[in-house]
Amino acid sequence: MAATSELFGVMTVNTARELLLHAIEHFRRHEYVPLDKACGRVLAADIVCNQDLPQFRRSVVDGYAVRANETYGASAALPAYFRVTMESAMGRNITGALGVGEAARVHTGSSLPESADAVIMVEHTARLERSDSDPCAEFEMEAFRAVAPGENILLVGEDVSRGSIPFRAGQELRPQDIGGLAALGFATVLVADRPRIGIISSGDEIIAIDVIPNPGQIRDVNSHALGALVRQTGGESILFGVAADDREDLIRRLRHAHQTCDAVVLSAGSSVSNRDFSLEAIESLCDEAVLAHGLSIKPGKPTIVAVFEGKPILGLPGNPVSAMIVAERLLVPLIRHMLGTGHVEPVEVVAKLGRAVASVNGREDYVQVQVGMRAGELWAEPLFGKSNSIFTMVHANGVICIPLNATGLEAGSSVMVTLQGKLKIK
Amino acid sequence: MAATSELFGVMTVNTARELLLHAIEHFRRHEYVPLDKACGRVLAADIVCNQDLPQFRRSVVDGYAVRANETYGASAALPAYFRVTMESAMGRNITGALGVGEAARVHTGSSLPESADAVIMVEHTARLERSDSDPCAEFEMEAFRAVAPGENILLVGEDVSRGSIPFRAGQELRPQDIGGLAALGFATVLVADRPRIGIISSGDEIIAIDVIPNPGQIRDVNSHALGALVRQTGGESILFGVAADDREDLIRRLRHAHQTCDAVVLSAGSSVSNRDFSLEAIESLCDEAVLAHGLSIKPGKPTIVAVFEGKPILGLPGNPVSAMIVAERLLVPLIRHMLGTGHVEPVEVVAKLGRAVASVNGREDYVQVQVGMRAGELWAEPLFGKSNSIFTMVHANGVICIPLNATGLEAGSSVMVTLQGKLKIK
Repeated sequence: MAATSELFGVMTVNTARELLLHAIEHFRRHEYVPLDKACGRVLAADIVCNQDLPQFRRSVVDGYAVRANETYGASAALPAYFRVTMESAMGRNITGALGVGEAARVHTGSSLPESADAVIMVEHTARLERSDSDPCAEFEMEAFRAVAPGENILLVGEDVSRGSIPFRAGQELRPQDIGGLAALGFATVLVADRPRIGIISSGDEIIAIDVIPNPGQIRDVNSHALGALVRQTGGESILFGVAADDREDLIRRLRHAHQTCDAVVLSAGSSVSNRDFSLEAIESLCDEAVLAHGLSIKPGKPTIVAVFEGKPILGLPGNPVSAMIVAERLLVPLIRHMLGTGHVEPVEVVAKLGRAVASVNGREDYVQVQVGMRAGELWAEPLFGKSNSIFTMVHANGVICIPLNATGLEAGSSVMVTLQGKLKIK
Repeated sequence: MAATSELFGVMTVNTARELLLHAIEHFRRHEYVPLDKACGRVLAADIVCNQDLPQFRRSVVDGYAVRANETYGASAALPAYFRVTMESAMGRNITGALGVGEAARVHTGSSLPESADAVIMVEHTARLERSDSDPCAEFEMEAFRAVAPGENILLVGEDVSRGSIPFRAGQELRPQDIGGLAALGFATVLVADRPRIGIISSGDEIIAIDVIPNPGQIRDVNSHALGALVRQTGGESILFGVAADDREDLIRRLRHAHQTCDAVVLSAGSSVSNRDFSLEAIESLCDEAVLAHGLSIKPGKPTIVAVFEGKPILGLPGNPVSAMIVAERLLVPLIRHMLGTGHVEPVEVVAKLGRAVASVNGREDYVQVQVGMRAGELWAEPLFGKSNSIFTMVHANGVICIPLNATGLEAGSSVMVTLQGKLKIK
């Protein structure tokens, strides 16, 4: 009895992920969103610059636009003299050119007169006051140093040039990217649609979260924790409720979810019979849908990876910790793949292990840890809940992986911790 | 002329941030949201467990519930014999107690009969087949090893116990926390309201993003980049448009934003006159509102930090890169403070510096970098755009800080890079 469930051929998580992503095409549904809703979304197409930025030659300092060669040799002892004949107002195009010995007052960001090729900073000049002191009139200015052609000027297209591709399809937009798109005038942006992930829990013991459980019953943790993970990754979660320990009920929900969603996640009930229903339900769609059954990972071994009609189906264990550990390693990359973003390294920190952790060769072991500062060093304290209880996962702020070919880690050894949530240093 | 703008007393960013946060109370507005919208939100109150989890003694394996003392001494050579008289169905409370020499069939997650105190795994037993083989009838089972009291059982309250406080106010909810709240039956959650951050751009040269710029004009980058940063941090952004280089226009918008929002962010125009308007507008509300004017940071020196009637006002430089660098260091902590979450360490990675970077003692210098793998090592390549152009920021995926008391960093030296967005290793 036990033998059958132990003997199925197991596969590493990485192999299963590669098989899965290989079998699934990038996602092809796109939508336009307003720029102010685009942060965190994924660009669906390259953006080719249809303009130069800046579109006019700008000063990057406050000062005077000059012909550079008229400043050559200028110093504090021997200044160059200029007649300031015009001012470049902000937001306007300055017209007219500088004559010989003339300069134009410019501000940071203002346009330059045609024949000017450099700007001398106001700090390196002095204004020669006139007795009548009419602020609008021309005045004389002395420059105490030389400037080179192009100095303190941003040329047309120097920030970004027409025809360049500053944004690529598959890029997840950050606040600064929103700024760049604003600069180019994109009031709306074409982004990848959120993949719709159907989620089904199962088990006679599972009840909806707003019901008071009778003895023997527990609330549906997985639908909500997996749903939150899906949304956090950029997908849309659609809950298909809790299937009873009933093969036909599960098949009905699976078919419905498969028809209406882009991928389906089942989380199995914990009884032996129910665990088999996930496999039976998936095989009822197609005998050859299953790519992997059983992963060399703990917790999470009885995972099923399948694809039917181009849509992925993941059969996760019913234990919430196992389901989340596997979902982080299969479902998150799957959603990112569907969005068209590349593989992302998890955020890891180095910490010292607070207690020894045993493991088995040939299996990746994931252990929840609490990371914190102790005497100026980061320590990771393993949390061993009996059967990986739900609140082990709540109390943890990180997870460590003991690799396939290791048989455990010693107390005090350095470990890489994948952070879960933000690390607060008190 | 230059002297006045250079001579104001500068303050470190850390001091300015501490002054600011000290002057602002935690935010007191809360709202109830459905559990499935609570991920990423911040809990507004501690959650005290009003129940034990599990609420009944559960088996954590498939097997047989027994009295532990009846297994003592059992081995493969000398098994203990049991009469299996009942089965604990999933989702039901098993009633009745075990008699002497009796066992109950249990599944992972099912409840235990009253007098059972341990579960022996099915792998360590054998069922003795009867010739009539009625599956519902009682049968004999032999156990090949002993179990200790409590073995393979999750006790009432062992996951989380009544009266404990598994979630604290100020905690940002992660997917696994959503799972924990589901287990406790929280269909709605009280979270901190999103702080409303009013954003005002200014400058005669700035136009709305959906307008075609004339020469001399540029589109409003800051409203959209800052707005995205606000939303990413958990705030709500409200745009108050672009003020002209006109003191009264800016004051009118600032008063409006200050009345309707929880904090206001101005980004100055880049002309000299306009830069002074931010200060004048803030001082028009109250002479003593300003806590800091001028920070020892580059870019971002001409920053203003103020508080009026308990609401923060930040006057940021107009240059988008400067505005974003300062906003990351003042606005993000401010929003987190208002949400009631603690200080969070930025995510940093160690990389080797691709080129030397000069700096000035007494100033924190922030340099945009592109981080990537080269020959198995992480390298950070400094991006020096003239006057920190917008697309320097778009091309960067990290930023390094040259500390106050350093005068530069050598090529090849190890630097800590604060990542901006996710790090993709190709």
